[in-house]
Amino acid sequence: MSDVLDLTCDLIRRRSVTPDDAGCLDRIGQRLTARGFNVEYLRFEDVDNLWATHGEAGQVLAFLGHTDVVPTGPEDSWATPPFEPTIRDGVLYGRGAADMKGSVAAMVVALERFVDAHPDHAGTVGLLLTSDEEGVALHGVRRVVDHFVATGQRIDACVVGEPSAKETLGDLIRVGRRGSLSGTLTVHGIQGHVAYPEKARNPIHAFAPALAALASERWDEGNADFPPTSFQVSNINAGTGANNVIPGELVALINFRYSTASTAEGLRERAEAILRAHGVDFAIDWHLSGHPFLATPGGRLREVVVSVCRDMCGIDPEQSTGGGTSDGRFIAPMGAEVIELGPVNATIHKVDENVAVDQLERLPDLYLAICERMLG
Amino acid sequence: MSDVLDLTCDLIRRRSVTPDDAGCLDRIGQRLTARGFNVEYLRFEDVDNLWATHGEAGQVLAFLGHTDVVPTGPEDSWATPPFEPTIRDGVLYGRGAADMKGSVAAMVVALERFVDAHPDHAGTVGLLLTSDEEGVALHGVRRVVDHFVATGQRIDACVVGEPSAKETLGDLIRVGRRGSLSGTLTVHGIQGHVAYPEKARNPIHAFAPALAALASERWDEGNADFPPTSFQVSNINAGTGANNVIPGELVALINFRYSTASTAEGLRERAEAILRAHGVDFAIDWHLSGHPFLATPGGRLREVVVSVCRDMCGIDPEQSTGGGTSDGRFIAPMGAEVIELGPVNATIHKVDENVAVDQLERLPDLYLAICERMLG
Repeated sequence: MSDVLDLTCDLIRRRSVTPDDAGCLDRIGQRLTARGFNVEYLRFEDVDNLWATHGEAGQVLAFLGHTDVVPTGPEDSWATPPFEPTIRDGVLYGRGAADMKGSVAAMVVALERFVDAHPDHAGTVGLLLTSDEEGVALHGVRRVVDHFVATGQRIDACVVGEPSAKETLGDLIRVGRRGSLSGTLTVHGIQGHVAYPEKARNPIHAFAPALAALASERWDEGNADFPPTSFQVSNINAGTGANNVIPGELVALINFRYSTASTAEGLRERAEAILRAHGVDFAIDWHLSGHPFLATPGGRLREVVVSVCRDMCGIDPEQSTGGGTSDGRFIAPMGAEVIELGPVNATIHKVDENVAVDQLERLPDLYLAICERMLG
Repeated sequence: MSDVLDLTCDLIRRRSVTPDDAGCLDRIGQRLTARGFNVEYLRFEDVDNLWATHGEAGQVLAFLGHTDVVPTGPEDSWATPPFEPTIRDGVLYGRGAADMKGSVAAMVVALERFVDAHPDHAGTVGLLLTSDEEGVALHGVRRVVDHFVATGQRIDACVVGEPSAKETLGDLIRVGRRGSLSGTLTVHGIQGHVAYPEKARNPIHAFAPALAALASERWDEGNADFPPTSFQVSNINAGTGANNVIPGELVALINFRYSTASTAEGLRERAEAILRAHGVDFAIDWHLSGHPFLATPGGRLREVVVSVCRDMCGIDPEQSTGGGTSDGRFIAPMGAEVIELGPVNATIHKVDENVAVDQLERLPDLYLAICERMLG
């Protein structure tokens, strides 16, 4: 069994359902310490994080990953137990196989090989791991970055191991992510009996035209790197359960996934203007969970990762900014160029999550090549 | 203490929270049996009902009431305990004082006086009481009417003792009620991740324009007896709780309170046409809880009740069809003329429910006068 496959299986066996690390970070820290890395364990509240570095000066190239996984759902829906790594027909099954214990193992193996082959490499190579990416993500990379800013730790370039590929390794890399802006909207009405609507004010009715306008609004046209901003109401709730009571309040959760063609402030203002224009009596509590970020075209890491995919996978990768958020949103504001490269994401968060063994075994080569082209 | 006040207090002391009768019907049945009434106890499932009659032929004048009450809410919010009838400053406090143990006691006392004074009255006078009016109302008057239809029991005229007055006894009588048509609407979408809206179909967004159209629709203009039909969405729910998931389904409860200017079938068809016109993928489960009904202007009972209010209260009563539904909706389809006359309804279903003692003590005189003018 190859080194990366062996380590991936070891990590899958640990039931590290977010935010429980289940010993994954210790295992990795011990390996990297033995290879001469300086390993720091950063614990914030109930979350373990690890920061391992090799090298002392110059440019900092960091690899970023997480050891926590999403819950399995009903375990008996899985063909084989989710925490028992199983290979069938060249495919490794288990929770976290693709998202992202496989990438984490590949990063560890690549870094070990890199410092073995280049003990006196230029700059600094680092590995940042958290066990709070899949959950609330409050005490993971967000807190580590606060710590880095406070201690003066720089990151210049960052490779995130999130599963980025569509069908085969190297066919898609993420060169940025949209921003995510959420709001909890409360529409105020006046409760009353359905038989006396003139004495009540139904917040469902009051909100309806504004909701229709928000849902049909074209927020921007996107740009060369980003699709247009999208708006979704993810939750709407009003009513007492009884069908003879007009409710006094409606609560909706809204979310923008927005391009660099818009700003969070601009979207907030426009949404509130639409609500006001429709006479809605409302309050809204906004939460910005991530600014949009983009690795500038022509940036060094972006060029290197594209060339590695071309040279080693024979593919000119799609350079996408699609998908959800990732912990890259916390690293980018440090001034780092952030690129995401990982295995096929078709089965993540699903039952029978898996990764093709041959692709997993090629992943350390890609990460190693990035190290060599950036710092070798 | 007057007879009606004494009986009202006795009934209030019984904790007959719907559908528990707590012995109210037995107490009344014993009194009426002693006065020569034929008393039938009709029990359906867990609900007790009572049907007491005096007389054998001709027109049937029924009085209709309920002995169940709504829950008290927090008992320590009451100035005095809700099941301990208390008189302060000429007002009787207690759960059910106004809705409608006071009316029930007044009906019993009036009927006793009527048959004492007119042992050989024309027609039949009856009292129908249920202990399931405030709850689901499945096994109360609804079932009794089924039983009446099956056994050939007629009702020609019916006085419902629901608290109808606004400020003083006799200022308002109900000469009909709007219909109530409810629907459980399910809007189908496709669940997905907020970051990939193109792979999902948000049922909240799909429903929004149709909701706005339904809420602003003018269903009819009402008519001489009824206000315009009103439409309310009482409940709307969609979403998983998470703000990154587009829900797969939305459920809304809708309700029409409709006049005789519309029909239930017509309203159903128009609502569904609006949903279809907006391309909503939906299913709807309709429930008709009551047809509208109306005591024809010039009808005998309506004339008698109006004249009794004029003569005995000195008021020309407002003849209204407003408000919620009542058990009159089950009696009217028997071909009966239904009129509602009872005490002031300002405090019903609230803490410190009450009835003015002087109004309570005049109520048996009104009911007695109705008996005398209809059957005397």
